[in-house]
Amino acid sequence: MRWDAMKKNISVINIGPEIFLPALQATGSPFTNLAWKPPAQGDTELIDILFALSVRFRDASGNSLIQTANEEALRRIVTGSPVLRRVRPAHECIPALNKTTILHAGPPIHWKDMCGPMQGAILGALQYEKLADSAAEAEALMESGSIFYGPTYPHGAVAPMAGIISYSMPLLVVENETYGNQAYAPLNEGSGQVLRFGANAPAVLARLRWMEESLAVVLDAALHKAGGVNLKSIMAQALSMGDEMHQRNIAASLLFYKSLCCELEQSARDRKEAQQILEFMVRENDQFFLNIAMAACRSMMDPARGIPYSSVITAMSRNGVQFGITISALGDRWFTAPSQQLHALYFPGFSEDDACLDMGDSAIIESCGLGGCAMGAAPAVARLLNRADNPPNILAHSSDMSRICVGANPDFPLPHRDFAGIPTAMDLCRIVATRTLPVITSGVAHKRGGVGQVGTGFVTPPIEVMRAALRYFYSQLLTQSKFAP
Amino acid sequence: MRWDAMKKNISVINIGPEIFLPALQATGSPFTNLAWKPPAQGDTELIDILFALSVRFRDASGNSLIQTANEEALRRIVTGSPVLRRVRPAHECIPALNKTTILHAGPPIHWKDMCGPMQGAILGALQYEKLADSAAEAEALMESGSIFYGPTYPHGAVAPMAGIISYSMPLLVVENETYGNQAYAPLNEGSGQVLRFGANAPAVLARLRWMEESLAVVLDAALHKAGGVNLKSIMAQALSMGDEMHQRNIAASLLFYKSLCCELEQSARDRKEAQQILEFMVRENDQFFLNIAMAACRSMMDPARGIPYSSVITAMSRNGVQFGITISALGDRWFTAPSQQLHALYFPGFSEDDACLDMGDSAIIESCGLGGCAMGAAPAVARLLNRADNPPNILAHSSDMSRICVGANPDFPLPHRDFAGIPTAMDLCRIVATRTLPVITSGVAHKRGGVGQVGTGFVTPPIEVMRAALRYFYSQLLTQSKFAP
Repeated sequence: MRWDAMKKNISVINIGPEIFLPALQATGSPFTNLAWKPPAQGDTELIDILFALSVRFRDASGNSLIQTANEEALRRIVTGSPVLRRVRPAHECIPALNKTTILHAGPPIHWKDMCGPMQGAILGALQYEKLADSAAEAEALMESGSIFYGPTYPHGAVAPMAGIISYSMPLLVVENETYGNQAYAPLNEGSGQVLRFGANAPAVLARLRWMEESLAVVLDAALHKAGGVNLKSIMAQALSMGDEMHQRNIAASLLFYKSLCCELEQSARDRKEAQQILEFMVRENDQFFLNIAMAACRSMMDPARGIPYSSVITAMSRNGVQFGITISALGDRWFTAPSQQLHALYFPGFSEDDACLDMGDSAIIESCGLGGCAMGAAPAVARLLNRADNPPNILAHSSDMSRICVGANPDFPLPHRDFAGIPTAMDLCRIVATRTLPVITSGVAHKRGGVGQVGTGFVTPPIEVMRAALRYFYSQLLTQSKFAP
Repeated sequence: MRWDAMKKNISVINIGPEIFLPALQATGSPFTNLAWKPPAQGDTELIDILFALSVRFRDASGNSLIQTANEEALRRIVTGSPVLRRVRPAHECIPALNKTTILHAGPPIHWKDMCGPMQGAILGALQYEKLADSAAEAEALMESGSIFYGPTYPHGAVAPMAGIISYSMPLLVVENETYGNQAYAPLNEGSGQVLRFGANAPAVLARLRWMEESLAVVLDAALHKAGGVNLKSIMAQALSMGDEMHQRNIAASLLFYKSLCCELEQSARDRKEAQQILEFMVRENDQFFLNIAMAACRSMMDPARGIPYSSVITAMSRNGVQFGITISALGDRWFTAPSQQLHALYFPGFSEDDACLDMGDSAIIESCGLGGCAMGAAPAVARLLNRADNPPNILAHSSDMSRICVGANPDFPLPHRDFAGIPTAMDLCRIVATRTLPVITSGVAHKRGGVGQVGTGFVTPPIEVMRAALRYFYSQLLTQSKFAP
């Protein structure tokens, strides 16, 4: 058959290489292009692992143990019901904390290796705890080795950016009513010069003391009167009001205040206190709910930890130097790779030369399917961040989430996407196979301690952390499984 | 040429009649179907008028006087800047009001012809003003002819549903800063048994008194302290948070409270009052902003009144019996046709047999391009109303607004529609030509006075009112114009 004659009769499907497209277009005949790419970027070891994971590890009926376990992880996440119960001092929530103990965000890291803002925030916390009278004194204390420190995660807590929690700081106590577990997070400090971005000036410490002595006391009393606040319904409503719950919490903050406003008014000890709380919490702080959302997400994700065979990501977090993830079947073990620079929009006078790398426990929000992963809820955030330096399109970037998730959360629907639930329960295998990465929205701290926030942006996890975790996941399954060869 | 041969070569465009579609599909050749319909439903008189309007009435350069005038109307609407300034007693805002004068929603109507809920609300207002001790006494007063009454519109006011305004009621005072004009609306009473839906029980009147003696006094003091509240920015934000500003005002109500919370707290005369206001305004009332939005829209639409040659609709309103519109070039003259039944979702125990027809001044919101006309902002409202009795698809129904509007309002962008401004300045000519009608979302009152709300739904204006207005518009242009034949 001659090529000319063939032109009329061929039905072509082009799989992968785009080099054939011009010639196919030139024939004038319709054809189908499948934008296929080799799995795992063509890494043959990982392809072998992915293949082995998909065919081995089956139960007596032939069902995939991994798929069954992942569906159980999904079920536990979507059936969670976070309720904000109390606001209590950190040492009451976490008995292991004493005056000379400090918690920080992300995977474990040594004082000497910490980024500037995390060091700056620790120096602030030591002064706030009255262990030092100056940053220099605090630094000497750290250098002497007399302060214990470690990550928030083993203690059920999450904290944004530098993520410093010390003895006296009030913590939000969120209970997942379905499973009975609790999660903790500090109160949001507002914007500008704040401890979480590494600032530690006297005004920062004075605000922390007011939060401890006034805001936390009144909030706790109000929560007690109200019998707690159901956070899932607030989060679901806020998602339909333009919040993605990480970079934008305007609706969630107002809905939270609405649900507690009468009790707050009753609990303030005088009108001046009522006034100060209104100003701090409602008038000036559109991100007040951020820390509440973090504790809520942590409380929803924790029941999915430790499910044998599950390859679902249970947490993502960063300490400003390393990005870490945990995987359900692998318990609390961190897999880490270097933190990345964000695609960011910088405040006037700052640039990426000033920026600390990706930092904070706040990626627990994306781990739960919200934040950058639910960008379809928040076009205003997408538009803002698409103005960042050299960005990929963030909306397109985050719209692929269903490719890497086990299922969806029907309790968190997106009204502007036909009320589809947000994709939920990210699967390590799917991430490595498709090289589709979740998007995380975040603030950017100055790389030096004591300065504060310099921008806002987004980032994806380093792919190496996923590949390393997958190798280990497979090796553990081989070792532990009765189906091992 | 035989039909068989022709099959291969014809390029068909089918214009209008769908009867040819099956035969065209049977040929297997591609064809284009243009869903054309004859203008003005084929009414030859109206087609002649539309043609005459499009070719006559030109300036010396040949530009359409109507198009130029309509663009001026659009410009005035989109450049408006509504600010809530005060809350003052009705008689202070409207000097023509005295103790024995009552205003009602919609076009003028005689007491005897009013629908049940409007009569019920008037009987309530007379008791609230202490002119009668019972509904029976109030009715006798109305029958005696000793009470003056008339529509809200000539007095710069708008009021929802029955739309009753009496001497002592506090009114929101909104100033359009760009043009200096003011508009008034009563305070929102909350939901359930309320005067605007025709209820007049003692609890309804007691609430109105508390609003007069407490809420209005504190709100006015807070507004004075704050120097007014910019409503346009609140409305723009709320539109990006799922509100369409008629059926849904959750975000707008919270954003409004946020912008005034500290001043309200300072202005309450004691903590009990602060508590009651919080409970009424924030905790219990997601529609508090509705009435503010109405006054804001009225203040934005009024500068577009009285522009010679402009065929833009400046107001739509209903008294429960008649639906009325006003047209820019035709000043304050009402064009009316019978009010329609809403496509509604009824509260348990009620059905359309209980329903009063379309009622209230609230369609000023749609006149300004919001409400049902901006349904793309509020998929949750669309989904709710699509469950109503035998509904057309409300989203599809309201997505055609750009076909009948002169332009768009860039200050009211829809983030989920690529930040396009809402279509604005509805043109009578385009409405009649395309038979595309704006969608109005609204509450449904019980048809008997004294009962209250029985459902929620949506409706379109009767097309006859548009056709009658167009005929009159043309006749006036012929009479007044130096270009008349």
